[in-house]
Amino acid sequence: MYTFFLYNWQVRDQWFEWCQQLDQSELLKQRVGGIGSILHTLLHIVDVEHSWIQAIQGKDDILHDFNDFTTLEDVVSLSHKYREDIKEFFNNHPFEQDHSVKAAWIDDTFTKEEVLQHVIAHEIHHIGQLSIWARELGLNPVSANLIGRGLFSS
Amino acid sequence: MYTFFLYNWQVRDQWFEWCQQLDQSELLKQRVGGIGSILHTLLHIVDVEHSWIQAIQGKDDILHDFNDFTTLEDVVSLSHKYREDIKEFFNNHPFEQDHSVKAAWIDDTFTKEEVLQHVIAHEIHHIGQLSIWARELGLNPVSANLIGRGLFSS
Repeated sequence: MYTFFLYNWQVRDQWFEWCQQLDQSELLKQRVGGIGSILHTLLHIVDVEHSWIQAIQGKDDILHDFNDFTTLEDVVSLSHKYREDIKEFFNNHPFEQDHSVKAAWIDDTFTKEEVLQHVIAHEIHHIGQLSIWARELGLNPVSANLIGRGLFSS
Repeated sequence: MYTFFLYNWQVRDQWFEWCQQLDQSELLKQRVGGIGSILHTLLHIVDVEHSWIQAIQGKDDILHDFNDFTTLEDVVSLSHKYREDIKEFFNNHPFEQDHSVKAAWIDDTFTKEEVLQHVIAHEIHHIGQLSIWARELGLNPVSANLIGRGLFSS
């Protein structure tokens, strides 16, 4: 399961790199679908992942005003900061221990396993959206292939 | 891991249902990104999943001419047929037994675990692309949420 997180982080970092070829107005330009812009779709991915990992640990959700994030560096910086928290979480919470998770923003309760799988699928889904926007800009998207990334030793 | 397959199949079936509101020309219309059309992106998902499960078992890849698939029913029918094969594979191949996988269409060798994770991510990624095309058509896409689908008992 953790491998999926490593995959998502590798792909996300490649998208951050990919974004460097675009100017700020292109990153913030409103597009159809997703979270409206490339930058805020990436921010949404970062935010949602961390929020659920906080919820699993019974910690408070940290709310962000998306308008405060106007540059690529703003989002990359939050991603790096949160990744450290999430790595620490995985170091301290073995996957074997499942338990019930309640998040502040939704009434239902979920198992930890369900939440982790949700977070994984959530990022991959939004990255798929970025790939369409990339093509619409006439650019090659980052590869979504999970194989051949050195995540496994064959 | 199998839960991700159940998730993908549930979402895919909802997209098949969603597609019923579109006429054939809209399903086959060339769009930017993905596999070019909604119908052939769904066919690609079905085809790739089955091809890798065949490869894991050391079975031959079955090649399809995408031009032969012109209706929603053509793709739904292949998806249902292949799903039975894949369910049977999971019944007979416990996840614990990892081994090396060689596919005809690629030179490298991968672990079974890597291939299964690749197949999962592959479908979620392409479904993300469909969600943009749906919005561009002015339609609500199928929800990509993995939580709340009854895949886990909390």
